[in-house]
Amino acid sequence: MNKLRMALIQLKVGSNKVLNISNARSMVLKASKEGANVVVLPECFNTPYGTAYFNDYAEEINSSEMGPTTLALSKMAKDAKVFLVGGSIPERAADSGQIYNTCTIWNDQGTLIGKHRKMHLFDIDVPGKITFKESDVLSPGNELTSFATPWGHIGVGICYDVRFPELAMIAARRGCFAMVYPGAFNMVTGPMHWEALMRARAIDNMIFVAGCSPARDLDFSYHAWGHSIVVGPKGDVKATCEFDETIVYADLDLAEIKEIRTNIPIYDQRRFDMYPDVSK
Amino acid sequence: MNKLRMALIQLKVGSNKVLNISNARSMVLKASKEGANVVVLPECFNTPYGTAYFNDYAEEINSSEMGPTTLALSKMAKDAKVFLVGGSIPERAADSGQIYNTCTIWNDQGTLIGKHRKMHLFDIDVPGKITFKESDVLSPGNELTSFATPWGHIGVGICYDVRFPELAMIAARRGCFAMVYPGAFNMVTGPMHWEALMRARAIDNMIFVAGCSPARDLDFSYHAWGHSIVVGPKGDVKATCEFDETIVYADLDLAEIKEIRTNIPIYDQRRFDMYPDVSK
Repeated sequence: MNKLRMALIQLKVGSNKVLNISNARSMVLKASKEGANVVVLPECFNTPYGTAYFNDYAEEINSSEMGPTTLALSKMAKDAKVFLVGGSIPERAADSGQIYNTCTIWNDQGTLIGKHRKMHLFDIDVPGKITFKESDVLSPGNELTSFATPWGHIGVGICYDVRFPELAMIAARRGCFAMVYPGAFNMVTGPMHWEALMRARAIDNMIFVAGCSPARDLDFSYHAWGHSIVVGPKGDVKATCEFDETIVYADLDLAEIKEIRTNIPIYDQRRFDMYPDVSK
Repeated sequence: MNKLRMALIQLKVGSNKVLNISNARSMVLKASKEGANVVVLPECFNTPYGTAYFNDYAEEINSSEMGPTTLALSKMAKDAKVFLVGGSIPERAADSGQIYNTCTIWNDQGTLIGKHRKMHLFDIDVPGKITFKESDVLSPGNELTSFATPWGHIGVGICYDVRFPELAMIAARRGCFAMVYPGAFNMVTGPMHWEALMRARAIDNMIFVAGCSPARDLDFSYHAWGHSIVVGPKGDVKATCEFDETIVYADLDLAEIKEIRTNIPIYDQRRFDMYPDVSK
């Protein structure tokens, strides 16, 4: 189990939740037909991205009683026989009523095997360019997330989480072969940082890194950067795209991780006598 | 003191030590005439880069009894009236006789104000492309290094140290406004990682980052990548060059650090309740 195909669904997300879900399903099934083993949906794939929408589109996430989106995700993972990183949806916590930006992860039987609540909320203010404050309506998650596949473990962060290098450092040092970030960067931070951040996490940790964005839709106020991307453990861009709706495929060979870590042996050379190991 | 000019001396280094030093002096004085306040020399600027050379070119570094290179560095910093990050030279420790790859740092009076011994030794083996093992002849340093200037503190690493993100994370979180890396990447790792690593350190920490390489010289076995570079705290390349001998100038405005940290407030958003702070 040294090779797998990853597919990133750069979905065009509209305001019709039912349509968003059925479009996601079609594309996941298509990716499966193309041989994908692990499929990733973008951040906020059942709702337009915006604090005004999150409350209306929010669902509870329980394995006992699923909302319509999680029910559909479970079924599409099972029908497509893929491991599915279900992008994210606004989650309403059953106990507190608080809303989270949450990624659910499903195995190829349709079983929920992981859940990541965005840990670092996107509160930025670039005057005259982009202002967004997730913390107005969302609560932050309090757990690092990874999940098991037949190819090894994969770590998960959501969008802004990628700016905090510790998540990938910890995941990689604990044995994950990849980090996957559903994320909707925008027209300001996208060209500035999207690819550079994905490559940084890959090079520093010698793992595969994927970022899956929604497609750009100029009918909504938030314009996603797109450019979904898979980076290899040497920092090379394996596959990417522009901003329209599409599927990005990348064939991952885990032997590349072993090769680069043998050639440039940073995993044996870290000086944890001089600085702490964040994974410990 | 919110603005300064930094100059990176991409020096062509030969086997004549006296000539290397006098060429460095000429270029430091030239950079000073062009208004530079902080001048950086490349890694191994008084010796060809290679384990076969380090023992022959090594000097002790003491403020009491200086070797010819450190004596010259002190004098050129004073004469040029600049803060000088003196690249690196092979240092022979007075007590043990061990050899280090060491950067000396001088203020504009010619006083030694800091010393960094390369902490992570460059031991890589990319079969058929590049094999190099510094640890055959060098010992690693055991201290993180930063120094004070009128503009604030600057952290220092040498070349391969840049692959270990902790140095820049710690320096930035303790208040440094820049990291400076004298470094001789090569024709394999240079195009793969040099710029990506410099940008990664800048973006993750929102600081200025500089990498100062020797010029490429095909007469020697080790071919430096060149491409000395200054990156701004937004991750933008402020100035860079190709591989020939040259001086790279960049005007740094510290207000840019405050601006980006206000716009994208990662310094207030880190989740040290979820992972350790390597700077603590």
